[in-house]
Amino acid sequence: MTRKYSVIVLRLGHRPQRDIRVTTHVGLTARAFGADGMLIAGLVDKGVEGSIRRVIENWGGAFKIASGVNWINVVNDWKKKGGEIIHLTMYGVHLNLVVNAIRNSPKDKLIIVGAEKVPGKAFHLADYNVAIGNQPHSEVAALAIFLDRLLQGKWAEINFKDAILRVIPSESGKKVFSLRNRHL
Amino acid sequence: MTRKYSVIVLRLGHRPQRDIRVTTHVGLTARAFGADGMLIAGLVDKGVEGSIRRVIENWGGAFKIASGVNWINVVNDWKKKGGEIIHLTMYGVHLNLVVNAIRNSPKDKLIIVGAEKVPGKAFHLADYNVAIGNQPHSEVAALAIFLDRLLQGKWAEINFKDAILRVIPSESGKKVFSLRNRHL
Repeated sequence: MTRKYSVIVLRLGHRPQRDIRVTTHVGLTARAFGADGMLIAGLVDKGVEGSIRRVIENWGGAFKIASGVNWINVVNDWKKKGGEIIHLTMYGVHLNLVVNAIRNSPKDKLIIVGAEKVPGKAFHLADYNVAIGNQPHSEVAALAIFLDRLLQGKWAEINFKDAILRVIPSESGKKVFSLRNRHL
Repeated sequence: MTRKYSVIVLRLGHRPQRDIRVTTHVGLTARAFGADGMLIAGLVDKGVEGSIRRVIENWGGAFKIASGVNWINVVNDWKKKGGEIIHLTMYGVHLNLVVNAIRNSPKDKLIIVGAEKVPGKAFHLADYNVAIGNQPHSEVAALAIFLDRLLQGKWAEINFKDAILRVIPSESGKKVFSLRNRHL
């Protein structure tokens, strides 16, 4: 997929024990739907990083992952370099009202997704506070729908380079093509 | 939203401690994107049920939730009553190839979403094994995209009846209209 800007997800409010599975879902969703990487704010979490790296090793692509970042610094640096900040929140304005403007702007996109409580500061630092519906649901669902609309369904055609494993789509079972050990 | 069929999510492989947060995300996503209810297979989990019920009490709607069901019985009953089974899996056929057929059929839809391991039997009992991309990501993301396509983005307009809380969409903060205590 070629596009003018990079798309990075910034995960706020991650608690290393409690959120390991949901944050892993956020990261894998970011990758599968075409984002370039994920930064996890707060503490370093090698568990989540490792889960996502193992997926990249097997299923390919150049997705970047890091944890333990200071989110305010990341946001300020992003803005200084001319990028824009999109915060996904049920309190924001409707996706359909802003997604075309975001897609058509050539600015790099930093997409903030929070866990339960997001600091008020995030709402003010964001260029866009965007709601994927104004109901409580899931940051994983919100991210999937946002990336689907931003990148216009391109997830269906992304070519993940250097993949060792590829699914062969099947009507009734699991078929996986593996390049592992192919030179043995 | 009026439609010809009911849409129920059947969650497989839920482990009461480990999956409480992800299963709650599955349930809230099901509700927010227009499904009528969720059944959780395996053990009873009052924690997940309670989380989702609290959302319904505050945010409205008639979403149904139950845990502790025997999934094979649910699937067999569903088929006996003329409904169809859609299993979301990264190993399945591409969403775009089947979603119109599923939408246009008048049959009630039971949508199976698994945790990490899904029994082979689910693949065989399903009328459709559907992939939201053939990459590992998240059942929450897969469910959101599937319901978005099935119901053609109707989540944006669902009216949740009897809501006590409603968001007033905002560009930069949290605005919630509450009917609680309005008669005091």
